[in-house]
Amino acid sequence: MATTVRAAVCLCLWLFACQVRGSHIPAEMNLTIHRLLQHYKISNQERFNGKPVFPSDQNKKIETKLIFMGGVLESYEKLLGHMLKQLPTPSPQITGSNAQPGSAITAASSSTNNSGSLPGTDVRSELNYILKKVQELKKHRYHEQEKLLQGLETLRDIKMNDHIVQSKALWQLPQLYEEASSLPEIKIQRRRRRRRQTKAKGRPRV
Amino acid sequence: MATTVRAAVCLCLWLFACQVRGSHIPAEMNLTIHRLLQHYKISNQERFNGKPVFPSDQNKKIETKLIFMGGVLESYEKLLGHMLKQLPTPSPQITGSNAQPGSAITAASSSTNNSGSLPGTDVRSELNYILKKVQELKKHRYHEQEKLLQGLETLRDIKMNDHIVQSKALWQLPQLYEEASSLPEIKIQRRRRRRRQTKAKGRPRV
Repeated sequence: MATTVRAAVCLCLWLFACQVRGSHIPAEMNLTIHRLLQHYKISNQERFNGKPVFPSDQNKKIETKLIFMGGVLESYEKLLGHMLKQLPTPSPQITGSNAQPGSAITAASSSTNNSGSLPGTDVRSELNYILKKVQELKKHRYHEQEKLLQGLETLRDIKMNDHIVQSKALWQLPQLYEEASSLPEIKIQRRRRRRRQTKAKGRPRV
Repeated sequence: MATTVRAAVCLCLWLFACQVRGSHIPAEMNLTIHRLLQHYKISNQERFNGKPVFPSDQNKKIETKLIFMGGVLESYEKLLGHMLKQLPTPSPQITGSNAQPGSAITAASSSTNNSGSLPGTDVRSELNYILKKVQELKKHRYHEQEKLLQGLETLRDIKMNDHIVQSKALWQLPQLYEEASSLPEIKIQRRRRRRRQTKAKGRPRV
């Protein structure tokens, strides 16, 4: 009983803090995550063992940060997919299967189900709701990064032991090595040009 | 005989073109690749089947291009590692095993060996030379991109089916979702601020 009250107080404080600082997370999403955490319970020792799933971002540049974050969202998409697959197939006996993902009705019925031992369709609809939120953010704000991440993914699929692949890669090497050598120089040249242009604009016109 | 002459002419033209446009590829590297291609022979049908190993870079921004290219260099590093592993273990009977990688002596002895059917230590030393060149470029020019690529690699190692991992990831989601939502806005704000500063510098001082 005491744990439930403490959890409820924490949740209220959390939601209040989000409201105050103008959070980007909808209150419904926060609530859904909180309810899912009741289902995906682990001990505090396990949760706070100093090894977070997603390490803190060490990148300094905003462009690099955005790409890493695109990767994080992609991982969440995969992870939620795995979590959905692991759920038991919904049986026709389970009530509340018609509830909409993320809706208040789902939320209410889900909390009742999760307090018991029935991993039913509500957990599924809640996971689907979270997945949808992650996918929407990825689609609308990380479209550019997604393209790059897909490109990097294709590099990982290269058949390294294939004789034809090896020969073709060797054939491509001079062109790619040339490009790889000149790209950092182009970046420096562009930065210098931009600085010169800014300085020139700063000078009073005669 | 005609094929050899044609190949030699092509190589000369290639080296001349590289010299003219101030290539970043050392002539020795070009020669080594050419010799390795004699060893890793495939038909023209196989080489020009419209499916290059490394697709052309579709990214537009220089920052993104650099990250993709960092990935390409990383792939070459792995590929050359695989090629080295596939080589037969050098036997004491093979001559020229003391030759230095990338040296003119190696080059000469290698071409002799490769024209025969002996995949000897020269191919190994040539592959090692190419690998060294790729690693040097990656180390000196792609250090920053390497860090990001390593970060993205750790994301791929996440144990998606682990219950503890799933719970910890859900716990981290509000903070990361918030960060992922605000990052693109920060980028836009910074760009606007920079534009304003440039414009302000451009105005004549009173």
